[in-house]
Parts: sequence; structure tokens; C-alpha cells
Amino acid sequence: MFALKNILDIMKQDIFAQHLGIRIVEAGEGQARGEMLAGEVHLNSLGIVHGGAIFSLADTTFAAASNSHQATAVAVNVTISYCKAAHKGMLYAWAKEISLNRRLATYLIEIKDEQENLIALFQGTVYRKEYS
Amino acid sequence: MFALKNILDIMKQDIFAQHLGIRIVEAGEGQARGEMLAGEVHLNSLGIVHGGAIFSLADTTFAAASNSHQATAVAVNVTISYCKAAHKGMLYAWAKEISLNRRLATYLIEIKDEQENLIALFQGTVYRKEYS
Amino acid sequence: MFALKNILDIMKQDIFAQHLGIRIVEAGEGQARGEMLAGEVHLNSLGIVHGGAIFSLADTTFAAASNSHQATAVAVNVTISYCKAAHKGMLYAWAKEISLNRRLATYLIEIKDEQENLIALFQGTVYRKEYS
Amino acid sequence: MFALKNILDIMKQDIFAQHLGIRIVEAGEGQARGEMLAGEVHLNSLGIVHGGAIFSLADTTFAAASNSHQATAVAVNVTISYCKAAHKGMLYAWAKEISLNRRLATYLIEIKDEQENLIALFQGTVYRKEYS
Repeated sequence: MFALKNILDIMKQDIFAQHLGIRIVEAGEGQARGEMLAGEVHLNSLGIVHGGAIFSLADTTFAAASNSHQATAVAVNVTISYCKAAHKGMLYAWAKEISLNRRLATYLIEIKDEQENLIALFQGTVYRKEYS
Repeated sequence: MFALKNILDIMKQDIFAQHLGIRIVEAGEGQARGEMLAGEVHLNSLGIVHGGAIFSLADTTFAAASNSHQATAVAVNVTISYCKAAHKGMLYAWAKEISLNRRLATYLIEIKDEQENLIALFQGTVYRKEYS
Repeated sequence: MFALKNILDIMKQDIFAQHLGIRIVEAGEGQARGEMLAGEVHLNSLGIVHGGAIFSLADTTFAAASNSHQATAVAVNVTISYCKAAHKGMLYAWAKEISLNRRLATYLIEIKDEQENLIALFQGTVYRKEYS
Repeated sequence: MFALKNILDIMKQDIFAQHLGIRIVEAGEGQARGEMLAGEVHLNSLGIVHGGAIFSLADTTFAAASNSHQATAVAVNVTISYCKAAHKGMLYAWAKEISLNRRLATYLIEIKDEQENLIALFQGTVYRKEYS
């Protein structure tokens, strides 16, 4: 397994995540936590947080969790269900590993707001490319 | 149906899409086309275009297509399959309507690169909130 | 909410579920449990339980959970991730409600075998048609 | 590629598909066509074709298409969007290959009724286990 420090260092090289203000605050052993302060820049034309911003927070946290083992994991398939509109404020993502095989692994990521409302549920599968 | 001009005007109020450089170039009658010049800012820690950036391009094009009728459409569920890694350069999204009911509608969005490679396939369903 | 008896009575009218040997053993308040004894008839050409049989068990349990409130719920979108091949023997499905809105609700269904291995994870959204 | 005859022979060993009356009528080069006569036995408690029956038709056609190359393909992830309720009568599935990589491939399967109505759209990804 990568040391926690390593996976956090890798995530710091994620320019897109930084552009959106996404931070990985914890990662290791198939789990990760991420957060994003949703502001003006994350809003869509309806004035609520854009689905792509919510997805990006979840996806980055998913990447942190799935790359916390000794293999490079790339996303194959993702499904997101939007449960509640999100407004400006902190959003939190929590990724947990549901299944881990040699080549494939599946994760479930919950995205919640400050009031602990479930904003979206994200289910993703990675292909694990190599063992380093 | 909204006039094309209207839906394009609405999309211009999408601050998040603008922040990522996403442009809707065509929209109407359940279809839409979008594009994004993927640059440094869209890359992840592996140096390829972030899944969240690809998703956001597809999602914005999906929003343009699904809001081209006289109802406010909000995303319920989306699935994205990543077929090929994307590098810096233009990315194109094309959304078409697969099914349209009174309250629900389903769209399929293809994301391709400049060489016409399929980068991802996005299947999304909206809930149609009101008739204006 | 339907009384437990009512939802179980409704599920008994599910001819397809009976044809596959699917039984709902518990349902109410957005939750449900189902089971199926996977036998020769549920196998595919590889000699393992067919993805359609696993899906049908999950889908029937999802229907029981989502129809346990006073509204007719119909499936809009479903995603299933297959985590492990299933062999002959008992399969168990457990559906729980993740999100409940006036018109839409989302459920997560785990399918496990007798050894508690996770066989598949099913995420489904329903549209709630009417209040009776 | 398997000869068409071979893949059709393999599909005949799919006991579950036969139990549901699913027939693969064409398969090869990443494509396949399947059909099923939906009768009393395929109905759910609402008197319409069970989501699991529709899924199983699509899934079997997906298996035929994805196993038409020289590799054993197993389903990783599937999403199905239900567009219209199906009634008794013939249902048709058409699977086409969207993307084919060494280890992963993605397919899109349309399910239609006799009137050419789109009943459901199925998007599935397989993992390709071995080259024979």
C-alpha cells in the first residue's frame, strides 16, 4: 500500500482537482475523504451546484481511494444518482471499497452537505493496471 | 420549445461550465453539441484529462439538450463509461434524446477527441419539473 | 405505508419472480429482503449464475422496498456492478432506501451468497407515480 | 473471432436464457441480436413485463456480442434505463460494440417491442479474461 503521505502527494499533482478547490483530506486502505467549498464558481444556470462539480469531488475521492493500493487504478464505469440539490457551502465525499479483485475494484462514494444531507450517491469501478 | 437563442443564453449563465471552458455550440429539439479545449488545467495526476472534466463537458451538453423543451429538466441518474484516455486538445460532446416522456427523458452523449476517437459514453436521465 | 402483509401479497402476484424462485421475506419502510435458491436453471453457459438471475433477485427486492410506501414506484434507472461470480446455492438481497423525495427515490441493494461474499451491488432509482 | 456457429452453440448452453425463452438469432464481430416472446410468465405484479426479464434479454444479447471475439468476456458493470413499459409480445434486443480495448469493452443494447418502441437502453462493460 502507498503510505498515506504518498497518495496525498499524488493527489496534489491533480491540477483539475485543485482548479475546483477539491482537497483530499484522508486516504488509505481503500478509503478516502475529500471536500470542496462550493462557491459562485461551482454553480450552474439554475444557481445550484453543477452536477459536474459534485461528480468531480466524488471522482477525485474515488481516485484517492482506489489508488491507495499498490496498483494504478483507472476508472472504467461510474454511476451517479443525484438525490438533493446542493447549494453554496462545504461538500464532503466519503469513498469506501466495496469489492477488490486482482484487476477490478468497486467503490461507493457518498456526497453530503454541511447539514449531513445526502446530495448524491456515486458507484464506480476501476481497472487496476499494474502492481508496482 | 425554447428558441435556440434562449437555451444558448441560459447556458451562458452556467458559471461552472464557463470556468472549465465548456461551450454549447448548438442546442434544440432534444439535441445539443458542446466542446471544450482540454488544457493543463483539465489534467489529473496521471497527466491525462480528469474524469470529472470529461463528465462535466458531457453533463453540460446533456443539460442543454434536456432543457431544449418547455420544461425544466434536472438530472436524476447518470452513467459514464470511459473508453479511452483523453489528452490535451479539443473534446466534443454530442447529446441526443433517446426517450421522452411527460416526466422523464433519457439522453445518450458521446464524447470524442479531435481524431474522432470515442473517449466516453454517457447515458443520463432527467426529471422534467414543470411546463412553462 | 402499506402494511407488511399487503406488500408481501402484492409480491406474490409477481409471476416472473415466482418463475425464478425469488421470495420476498421482509418488506416495509423503504427496506426489503429477498432470497433465491440458485440452481441448475439459473446458470449461464459458463456454469455460473446468470447476470440476469442475480439482477432479477435484486430488482424484485428493490420493487418490494420502493413500493412499501403509499405510492406506486416504477424503476427508472438501475446500475449493477458484478463483484464475484455466484455458484449454486442461496443468494440473498437486501434493499435499503438511500433517498426519498416526492417523485423520486433511490435504493441500494446488496446481493450476497451463503458465505456472505458480496456478489453484486445494485443502485436503482424509481419514479413514484401516485399517492393512493 | 469465434465462428458465428460457435457463439450460437455456446449460447445454447445458457440454461437460464432458455428458461426465459431468450434466443440469440445472430452474433459476430461485436454485435448480436436476441429476442424473447414475453408471455404471462414474464409479468410482474403490475401486469407488465418484469424489469428482470427485460434486463435478462439484454444481458444475454450483450454476452453473445462480447464473447464473439477470441476472449472470454465477463460483465463488470451494467446500467439500464427503462423508457417505456413493455407488454406481452415479442421483444427484440440489438447489441453493438462501442469500444474494444485489450482488457475492457463496452456495448450498447437497445430493447424494442414489435411496434419499434424503445423499451430500454442498456450500457454494459465487460472484462476480457483470456485470449484463446
